[in-house]
Amino acid sequence: MAGCENTREMPYELLVELVAEQLHRAGCSQSTSLILAENCIKAEIAGSESHGLFRLDGYVATLRSGWVDGMAEPKVSILSPAHVHVDAANGFAQPALEAARSEFTARTRDHGIAILTIQGSHHLAALWPDIAPFAEDGLIAISMVNSFACAIPVGAKAPILGTNPIAFAAPVPGGAPFVFDFATTSLSNGDVRLAAREGRRLPPGCGVDRHGDPTTDPNEILEGGALLPFGGHKGSAISLMIELLVAGLTGGKFSSEVDWSKHPGAATPHTGQVIIAIDPFVAGAGDWSSRCTRFIQMLAEAGMDAYPGLRRWRIGDRDTVSVPPDVWRVLADSETAVI
Amino acid sequence: MAGCENTREMPYELLVELVAEQLHRAGCSQSTSLILAENCIKAEIAGSESHGLFRLDGYVATLRSGWVDGMAEPKVSILSPAHVHVDAANGFAQPALEAARSEFTARTRDHGIAILTIQGSHHLAALWPDIAPFAEDGLIAISMVNSFACAIPVGAKAPILGTNPIAFAAPVPGGAPFVFDFATTSLSNGDVRLAAREGRRLPPGCGVDRHGDPTTDPNEILEGGALLPFGGHKGSAISLMIELLVAGLTGGKFSSEVDWSKHPGAATPHTGQVIIAIDPFVAGAGDWSSRCTRFIQMLAEAGMDAYPGLRRWRIGDRDTVSVPPDVWRVLADSETAVI
Repeated sequence: MAGCENTREMPYELLVELVAEQLHRAGCSQSTSLILAENCIKAEIAGSESHGLFRLDGYVATLRSGWVDGMAEPKVSILSPAHVHVDAANGFAQPALEAARSEFTARTRDHGIAILTIQGSHHLAALWPDIAPFAEDGLIAISMVNSFACAIPVGAKAPILGTNPIAFAAPVPGGAPFVFDFATTSLSNGDVRLAAREGRRLPPGCGVDRHGDPTTDPNEILEGGALLPFGGHKGSAISLMIELLVAGLTGGKFSSEVDWSKHPGAATPHTGQVIIAIDPFVAGAGDWSSRCTRFIQMLAEAGMDAYPGLRRWRIGDRDTVSVPPDVWRVLADSETAVI
Repeated sequence: MAGCENTREMPYELLVELVAEQLHRAGCSQSTSLILAENCIKAEIAGSESHGLFRLDGYVATLRSGWVDGMAEPKVSILSPAHVHVDAANGFAQPALEAARSEFTARTRDHGIAILTIQGSHHLAALWPDIAPFAEDGLIAISMVNSFACAIPVGAKAPILGTNPIAFAAPVPGGAPFVFDFATTSLSNGDVRLAAREGRRLPPGCGVDRHGDPTTDPNEILEGGALLPFGGHKGSAISLMIELLVAGLTGGKFSSEVDWSKHPGAATPHTGQVIIAIDPFVAGAGDWSSRCTRFIQMLAEAGMDAYPGLRRWRIGDRDTVSVPPDVWRVLADSETAVI
């Protein structure tokens, strides 16, 4: 295929169109295809390789096997004045969020805080693209998802936690939102899979092999081993909290209830996502604009080159995307490839 | 003083009375004295030595120096239907919380979620006694406080973060609440001070000396050095989030704005506290009772001896308190000592 050997610049809009077209052919509705394509290309542009176009074959595989329903129609309901719920009907979490975004935003402004629970969904992507738009819209947002069992909590012997990422976004007056997004495991699954693909060892302390012994071999972690939480018992506690908030609160499956063993094709994830949004500009508490501006100044004075989210924002502010050879191959590696 | 050389059992109610009396003599209102006494004795009983009666001399010093106003009258206001705010008026955070607890609980139930922001307060204690009662009352609660600058964020050179603890409590049907509470630094200040007092070295990676070089000497951390966040850049990001949520959102001081350098007496803290509470029993989302029960079962099946909060609950369910010799000395080491 032409272009398969070299990195080439491609206009953002064209790449979104190509990726969305491939997702649509794999079984996604047109609107869901567009949402997922924008999500993984934004991650790719922002340098988050493990959540970028690398994930495209995962999307296609989950769609083809019936693991996730790309045509699902999310159903939004109001459970309490500040609690919006979406039944994702075994679809991806992102279209469920988009179905509820305007209602959820309005209720956050009306009540000062609101919670969005998404049930019966699957989330394969970076979390920050879900919540950065809330910060651009003047709201603080925290989001969490669970996944499938691959990590052992401190004090336990079996993997029952997912990588369980948490993300946070807050508006910075006149600047890029303050944003972070990370797996509560030592590494994300994507990072482990990338290391395995590239034949790299992992730093010590990331995971264990099938016998529960420490290993730095990504293949031993992926083949019957497990990851460990980040930060010892503290990170482990946060990951347990995420299970309770995401699966417990939404009614979705806990990570350990997801039967991933015979994937693709054996079962469906039906996990969940929670977003809590807060209006920081409510009158009478702090003066968010001046306080947040002061905080960002303090970080610079303390020697931080960039606050969390700033680098990604700067990189992401581009019209074209560098598409490396392996991404060309991902786009081409399919019987329904569009290029 | 009689009893100063041996550990003795003392009835809980009597010890609360003695400690409250000492706090009252140091300048606390009677209601605030009682709240603080119960807080630190509960921590003592639960085995959280660094936040137990060990903290009593800290309370007394902050009161005598005018660092905190023990007679402050908290002012509660409603900023939005689900946002309750308390001006703690430079008092302790706990009486501010108690002044708002019933209103905040009612609004959480009415709206599904609510936020409590406490501004202009000082929090010297464990966080879990603040929020465990919400879980006993059927609500999920998350709380965060900031403190004074003593930790360096990843990527910075100067200490601008406090120990910035986060705590979580969730109701477990028929059992002890699921509760955790930890500093987002490698160790709490109390742990470092206890190690210094006992002449113990700290594990590697906890902190740096005044030159920014790694040290395991607690005195070097306390005297011009700094702590490091737990869990590398991930723990650091969580601590930055806590600054933004607690000081940014409440209008309280950031940890780096607290002038602790000439303590006691130079300035006052005016930091903040945030509590987010969620009603997990709202109809239409998950079935919390059965989901949470299943989760606790899964932890046991995975080999966890006890879920977070369970041990503390079992230990704490006692009528008497073991008062060791050094605690007798804390109670006696004051010109206004009551025993």
